[in-house]
Amino acid sequence: MLNSRLKNVKKQLKENNLEGVLISSVSNITYLTGYVNFSKNEREAYLIVGEDFQYLITDARYSEAVKKEVAHFTLFERNHQNKIEDLLKSLQKRIKTLGIEEDNLTVVEQKMLNKYFKNLRHIEIGKHRAIKTAEEIKKIEQAAKLGDEAFKFILGKIKPGVSEQEIAFELEFFIKRNRAELSFPSIVAFGKNSAIPHHQTGGTILSDQAGQFVLLDFGVKYENYCSDMTRTMFFGKPSEKQKRIYETVLKAQQKAIDYIHSAIKSGKKVMTAKADEVARDYITSKDYPTIPHSLGHGIGLEVHEHPSLSPKAKKF
Amino acid sequence: MLNSRLKNVKKQLKENNLEGVLISSVSNITYLTGYVNFSKNEREAYLIVGEDFQYLITDARYSEAVKKEVAHFTLFERNHQNKIEDLLKSLQKRIKTLGIEEDNLTVVEQKMLNKYFKNLRHIEIGKHRAIKTAEEIKKIEQAAKLGDEAFKFILGKIKPGVSEQEIAFELEFFIKRNRAELSFPSIVAFGKNSAIPHHQTGGTILSDQAGQFVLLDFGVKYENYCSDMTRTMFFGKPSEKQKRIYETVLKAQQKAIDYIHSAIKSGKKVMTAKADEVARDYITSKDYPTIPHSLGHGIGLEVHEHPSLSPKAKKF
Repeated sequence: MLNSRLKNVKKQLKENNLEGVLISSVSNITYLTGYVNFSKNEREAYLIVGEDFQYLITDARYSEAVKKEVAHFTLFERNHQNKIEDLLKSLQKRIKTLGIEEDNLTVVEQKMLNKYFKNLRHIEIGKHRAIKTAEEIKKIEQAAKLGDEAFKFILGKIKPGVSEQEIAFELEFFIKRNRAELSFPSIVAFGKNSAIPHHQTGGTILSDQAGQFVLLDFGVKYENYCSDMTRTMFFGKPSEKQKRIYETVLKAQQKAIDYIHSAIKSGKKVMTAKADEVARDYITSKDYPTIPHSLGHGIGLEVHEHPSLSPKAKKF
Repeated sequence: MLNSRLKNVKKQLKENNLEGVLISSVSNITYLTGYVNFSKNEREAYLIVGEDFQYLITDARYSEAVKKEVAHFTLFERNHQNKIEDLLKSLQKRIKTLGIEEDNLTVVEQKMLNKYFKNLRHIEIGKHRAIKTAEEIKKIEQAAKLGDEAFKFILGKIKPGVSEQEIAFELEFFIKRNRAELSFPSIVAFGKNSAIPHHQTGGTILSDQAGQFVLLDFGVKYENYCSDMTRTMFFGKPSEKQKRIYETVLKAQQKAIDYIHSAIKSGKKVMTAKADEVARDYITSKDYPTIPHSLGHGIGLEVHEHPSLSPKAKKF
């Protein structure tokens, strides 16, 4: 499987007239090597792939693990004697144009590469990841299933007097007790806070007074694959206005799903911007303001992956 | 406090002949605005600071929270009508050279900026953060104190039959029960695994047979400030060889601490590369290979901050 992924990258290089690519994004490194332990917060590894070579560049903190776990790649252990620059220099003659991930590589890294390769060009390695294998789909399904179980579990904890933080804490522990991780820090929002899409879960207490929206936005990461689930509930008796808001959103979502299903059924391409538009326009047609985010996104090794269902999205 | 940080940046701009700076790193954004909720995995905000203006650029997912929590900055809510390009264009006349964080900004972002500003130049905004205020030191101390308590707690759990993952799980729950977060995913390594500095905590079981090294590397994040603590222990009776390894490392650490103390005492500058050298050379003088990482680093909003105690470090 990993080997066929590597073959796809090599094919993509050929199609793009590139003699090599430097891959810096952790998700693509994980996708191609199977190794999951590099940090996303600091740069700890690169891949360099060409027609007849593939290097994994990392340091001595990781080399023992990489030797054990990563096949198909030549390990280049960078250190003060063995610099990444030495490897780049040795590849200079074989690579006329080097592919880079412009949306991940930093300016300082680009400058370093530019010393050895005059021609750098963006290549979208991640797009392969949008098309999942059966094995990947199974992992995502398992992540989503555990998310459903966590949701059921947490419903029983939502009671007057509880704080957002406590609910987030219980949710996290449930997921971790089940040997999985969070896809991202859980968002729990009570009352007015639920109007802030990325509310910072805090000390707000669920009151037993007026009815309140309760928003949960959380995900499970199972064997490195993410689920992402947002649910809006109501605690107490909703007003007519609140019901109307909820039902408008639900209907908008259903309209987008219907559009996607019917496009697939009729054998047409699904236009991701169109899916967003169908939902967005329904909401504005009901005299609500437009939604402050895109409609949706793919999931996988990252919680946000291609395709994006947004006004800017190209067809997919 | 935040206001004086902003003033420092403006002073730094003047000293560097920059009319403005675009700040993209989340830690610097947090440092300057006090707002802690932007993701480090995706780009969700920028700051643009000049002599007489300061913008916080984000989207509608965050604007409600930012309005509430962030003073001193003008909110620029980017969306499909109100593009970041419009703001850049409006600043074109006032900014001849724009500072950027080259070690954080991506190539694609640089290209976008280049459409509006021909001159971009690196500026190190984060270096201010190395010098902590009393308030920051207090938070780090509290993080470290909770780390000590967690360490004491977890010692009682290290028993034959337990797995690395179980120890990491208990450690995390202890920290979260105390209303704090992890600075980074905890590393728990038994036996041979302790030779891998960034071992991926796994299913390895502590055996009751031969004596084994037990390595814990974890940190507490308290009010957004990080601690970072590595402890190597021994379960069972260590061999002479194992004792010698442990004591060599301990002595090397003590030598570096002594060097730093004596430099401070004598009013000399502490040379960070020298601190690394003192420890590193002691280890190699005992016929062990050189250590596969730098000696140490600052802590703060990030778990790794200036200064770095490494062979490449400049004096600090």
